[in-house]
Amino acid sequence: MCRWLAYSGSPIILEELLYKPDHSLIDQSLHARLGVETTNGDGFGVGWYGADTDAPAVFRSIEPAWNDRNLREVAGHVASPLFLAHIRASTGTAVQQTNCHPFRYGRWLWVHNGLVRDFPRVKRELALAVDGSLYTSIEGSTDSELLFYLALTLGLEEDPPGAVERMVGLVEDVGRRHGTEHPIQMTIATTDGKSVWAFRYSSEGKSRSLYYSSDVRTLRELHPDLPRLQEVSDETRIIVSEPLGDLPGAWNEAPESSYGVVREGED
Amino acid sequence: MCRWLAYSGSPIILEELLYKPDHSLIDQSLHARLGVETTNGDGFGVGWYGADTDAPAVFRSIEPAWNDRNLREVAGHVASPLFLAHIRASTGTAVQQTNCHPFRYGRWLWVHNGLVRDFPRVKRELALAVDGSLYTSIEGSTDSELLFYLALTLGLEEDPPGAVERMVGLVEDVGRRHGTEHPIQMTIATTDGKSVWAFRYSSEGKSRSLYYSSDVRTLRELHPDLPRLQEVSDETRIIVSEPLGDLPGAWNEAPESSYGVVREGED
Amino acid sequence: MCRWLAYSGSPIILEELLYKPDHSLIDQSLHARLGVETTNGDGFGVGWYGADTDAPAVFRSIEPAWNDRNLREVAGHVASPLFLAHIRASTGTAVQQTNCHPFRYGRWLWVHNGLVRDFPRVKRELALAVDGSLYTSIEGSTDSELLFYLALTLGLEEDPPGAVERMVGLVEDVGRRHGTEHPIQMTIATTDGKSVWAFRYSSEGKSRSLYYSSDVRTLRELHPDLPRLQEVSDETRIIVSEPLGDLPGAWNEAPESSYGVVREGED
Amino acid sequence: MCRWLAYSGSPIILEELLYKPDHSLIDQSLHARLGVETTNGDGFGVGWYGADTDAPAVFRSIEPAWNDRNLREVAGHVASPLFLAHIRASTGTAVQQTNCHPFRYGRWLWVHNGLVRDFPRVKRELALAVDGSLYTSIEGSTDSELLFYLALTLGLEEDPPGAVERMVGLVEDVGRRHGTEHPIQMTIATTDGKSVWAFRYSSEGKSRSLYYSSDVRTLRELHPDLPRLQEVSDETRIIVSEPLGDLPGAWNEAPESSYGVVREGED
Repeated sequence: MCRWLAYSGSPIILEELLYKPDHSLIDQSLHARLGVETTNGDGFGVGWYGADTDAPAVFRSIEPAWNDRNLREVAGHVASPLFLAHIRASTGTAVQQTNCHPFRYGRWLWVHNGLVRDFPRVKRELALAVDGSLYTSIEGSTDSELLFYLALTLGLEEDPPGAVERMVGLVEDVGRRHGTEHPIQMTIATTDGKSVWAFRYSSEGKSRSLYYSSDVRTLRELHPDLPRLQEVSDETRIIVSEPLGDLPGAWNEAPESSYGVVREGED
Repeated sequence: MCRWLAYSGSPIILEELLYKPDHSLIDQSLHARLGVETTNGDGFGVGWYGADTDAPAVFRSIEPAWNDRNLREVAGHVASPLFLAHIRASTGTAVQQTNCHPFRYGRWLWVHNGLVRDFPRVKRELALAVDGSLYTSIEGSTDSELLFYLALTLGLEEDPPGAVERMVGLVEDVGRRHGTEHPIQMTIATTDGKSVWAFRYSSEGKSRSLYYSSDVRTLRELHPDLPRLQEVSDETRIIVSEPLGDLPGAWNEAPESSYGVVREGED
Repeated sequence: MCRWLAYSGSPIILEELLYKPDHSLIDQSLHARLGVETTNGDGFGVGWYGADTDAPAVFRSIEPAWNDRNLREVAGHVASPLFLAHIRASTGTAVQQTNCHPFRYGRWLWVHNGLVRDFPRVKRELALAVDGSLYTSIEGSTDSELLFYLALTLGLEEDPPGAVERMVGLVEDVGRRHGTEHPIQMTIATTDGKSVWAFRYSSEGKSRSLYYSSDVRTLRELHPDLPRLQEVSDETRIIVSEPLGDLPGAWNEAPESSYGVVREGED
Repeated sequence: MCRWLAYSGSPIILEELLYKPDHSLIDQSLHARLGVETTNGDGFGVGWYGADTDAPAVFRSIEPAWNDRNLREVAGHVASPLFLAHIRASTGTAVQQTNCHPFRYGRWLWVHNGLVRDFPRVKRELALAVDGSLYTSIEGSTDSELLFYLALTLGLEEDPPGAVERMVGLVEDVGRRHGTEHPIQMTIATTDGKSVWAFRYSSEGKSRSLYYSSDVRTLRELHPDLPRLQEVSDETRIIVSEPLGDLPGAWNEAPESSYGVVREGED
């Protein structure tokens, strides 16, 4: 199990979201409420976009997020209009930087919570399905990174929802041929630095939790007394494995087997 | 909060105690039951004595114990008749090897669970009380290591119970002069490789949990069907922050403000 | 031995100085030319100031700089008008984050190359000379950090040259009383985010190497064909343990037993 | 470039070989003489067999060997009759535990110095040649580990020299089809805990250095005054990337394109 967060909106200092909310992502590294495990201490990562159109920065570490000083420093001094953060609880693969999310390819980032069931049984066949030109960019040993490269192979850069759908179909097909009833369990966020796509799906129809923040205009009407809401742009959205804080009306559960996209204009 | 374990008896492979029991110390790194926190993920250490009379080995790491592969390897291949193990939950000081327990000085090892309250306020005065010849051996920044060097200064090598009593007296005296009502909270184990001394104390009279295993002869009578108990020497004893496994009659709570010693002959 | 770099001038992406020059600081972590050792692989650190007047960020790691991916990411995405970077070769103290430079206190940063000779012999007496309110902020075990806290005790924030002079005097006095002929060897840079003070000194009068970059206006006249020099502000200065690149006229050796200051206006 | 060492003979404390010789393997991590690089600071590993016939222990770390305290502790307290040690200089793949040597499969260990040229170009095809049942045991991303799994696929456990020869043939065949003139450069040691096989080969016929120690009986005649040689069993052999110490007559260069085996009885 893991926990992740995606932010898109007015540029903010990362720690505003990663540390300051009551039930922040960093707090979830020790005290997750909605996951299979309460502890997510097998490394973390954050990927952020700057003001320009270059590739995102990725900072990943194998140490638990809760006491990592470098994460605190970076989060306290970097502002970004779009970032993904992830805290990891390994389901068996090694605790190493190349297994920490987000994974990056060119301008794209990818975070995943969940697993490919019976991964050792299907790993080779899934790896073979990755395009030859992409294969050597795989650096780690996780199912999560392999899902990213399968999605890239299947057209992520042109059609994210279609590519993820095809990726899921492939994993389910391969898994079932190998005798696995429910091959995939996932929430995923991916972004090219402009839009964020979030997915919630599982073969068994009981997916890991996923929430997205309410429209800022609605929230302002609900909470006219909160000054921070006045400062935030209308476009600001947060997608999370589990809600931050307890603001009534702020969080909505993503439906089963659904996806959403956050971008300028309508979501 | 931390958790620790001390073993003295027939030589065993470390993993027999660190990994295999139902509620092993490594399991407690993720799921402690009796502590202030359930997670002890800020590093770990194990110190063990070999067959000869040399100084003990100490293996310490800042990574969580639960997924540390080197700990698993060492624990699976090293046998010892006497060892201490510790999993750490930092109360504020840095996560670094020199802050991991056990601390070592010559033939002596030391593990601690608890804290010196308002430590920043009294640290300098306590550090000044350490003997000049010992001072430069302090490598880390924890209260726990400082307690060790105070006890060494006050005669640990000649009279462990007396030295620890004097150390506690000093810490309480300094703390109260600085306005701290309950200056110290502790369970401690220390050993010279022959005997193990364990202490349970707190200024407020509500000390962290501490248990010791029952006499092996008694356990054999209670559980004649358990083959492992037949193999273990009469002298074998385990002292732990919280019980391993659920064997009825196996564990006894150490009384408040008490100490015990495990050695050849009578304990 | 260590190597360090201080930059003050037009805001630049850190990697422009840390990675791109021919004989960059990161290159010096593997191939130092002027130091006692060619390898500086015992950790590194970089501290930088942002656009505002807040405290600097500090990113430190115990891994060698040459292959550290997070350093590369941070350096590639962070711009700063004033930063210090340091690569470490331990002279005996533990390889841990709290022993990596730069050290920070409030708005101040500090890097050091050199050593206090016979440090174990004088450590306690020097530690006692640190002001009580500063003492508990010491987190590591190096001579370098202790020099910083001594300088702070002796007025660094009001009068940097005077405070460093008094610190040197104290260390030489204590060292000689303990029988050390040449107690201190140092190059130091310290900054409050506005000015940078650099010092070169050793008791024996043979100090570690130190260089500062020439006035940008002079360099432009020498090299009218170099476009980068046209973009850099007149105020830009770099101070380094050993020169970066081989641009003729670009580097000047700092005299023995000297200090310099870089700030807006005249240096 | 990397450096490695294989030992087979009377059980010895690891540090006797890893630390104590004049030009020990740990010394080579900072000051290699015969390699492409003088520094081997991108992690290390040691794998050792105990008295029994169980699988070997493997201790690997991403920190430089020269200052790693846990390596020093383990090496100072573990005795073994057969062990492999390796210090790494990455040729581009990530610095992570799963890329450190020795690699282990069941009872087998494997260390490698050298490289597969143009590895990104041939990685996928080589990975596909690994047997399906072995594929999921690959944890890292190096050419070295892949060579091990290819050799296992091609019969390492039954016929080590034949399997390594076939592995080399496969790598050369695949490499040349992809346009690489000299696909492989290697010295390799592999062992099942009873025998050690060492190989020296390169497609261009200019292989990395490899030395083996002289027969102990011969050495005793050459140096009747060295007491340590009297204590060592006749069967003791050491194979190294570069000689330890400067004992005349002690080291022999392995011929180009050769292999040797060390086992009980004749070598």
